[in-house]
Amino acid sequence: MKKQYIFAVVVICLTLTAFLLTDSSDTIVKYPTGYRNWTHVKTLVLEKGHPLYEAFGGIHHIYANKIALEAYKSNKKFKDGSVIVFDLLEAVNSDNAIAEGSRKVVGVMEKDSKKFKDTGGWGFEGFNGDTKERIVKNMYGECFSCHLSQKNNDYVFSQYRK
Amino acid sequence: MKKQYIFAVVVICLTLTAFLLTDSSDTIVKYPTGYRNWTHVKTLVLEKGHPLYEAFGGIHHIYANKIALEAYKSNKKFKDGSVIVFDLLEAVNSDNAIAEGSRKVVGVMEKDSKKFKDTGGWGFEGFNGDTKERIVKNMYGECFSCHLSQKNNDYVFSQYRK
Repeated sequence: MKKQYIFAVVVICLTLTAFLLTDSSDTIVKYPTGYRNWTHVKTLVLEKGHPLYEAFGGIHHIYANKIALEAYKSNKKFKDGSVIVFDLLEAVNSDNAIAEGSRKVVGVMEKDSKKFKDTGGWGFEGFNGDTKERIVKNMYGECFSCHLSQKNNDYVFSQYRK
Repeated sequence: MKKQYIFAVVVICLTLTAFLLTDSSDTIVKYPTGYRNWTHVKTLVLEKGHPLYEAFGGIHHIYANKIALEAYKSNKKFKDGSVIVFDLLEAVNSDNAIAEGSRKVVGVMEKDSKKFKDTGGWGFEGFNGDTKERIVKNMYGECFSCHLSQKNNDYVFSQYRK
């Protein structure tokens, strides 16, 4: 009886380990903690009338972690570990000035050529406003299908502004 | 004769040393080397019709070094060694988007309460476009007189955007 008990415990432990190793958290894009201290790559403002206004209207800033920055500066392929943040804020127009308003979304591209091999090696996610609520349901259809046009730039739209 | 020669050389060396120690480079604002990797504080776009358009029209980004960032985040006084950069770029309006164009000026505020005691402890300078050509002739009249309005914020206009 004791042996059977030990055997059962071992089986449960192995099952849990296997579950943890294949848990979905391993294949989802991480929240880019600390990105506000990363290097600012560039900024763009999309206004009413722009084809992408509904999805991305406002002021967006691009930030890159150190690994991604190397690729931006050398025009080489982004290495695994590269993370790019697309920080989208409301544009507040007033008295001939456009200021930053509330955060709409924190978009993230995370490079891992094994985890995300079906989307050019990039994982895509969006976090709602200032929360960690995930908003991308289908990274191929909602993100990669458009980034495909940038295949020659390793699927990245932005370029580093010196 | 030999002694007189050595004496003359010593005098020349001492004079040169004294000159270097009191050279104006000690009291001018340094070019903020590496600022593009500093933390991006905030962005503002000034358009035609804004009262400051002539001087500061375009997209400007504020960057802070680590010492300045501490003050931005804590709302305390900026410590000596704080450096804030005002990076002003042309705004390129096209197809309902506003993109970053050429650099107009790299404005700098450098905190040193002893060197710059007549201007609130801040040294002010502007570097023309992508050059190191200095453009501020009178930091009190051209810069500080306007920053005086922000005395309660240690003479700094910008606030850190989270």
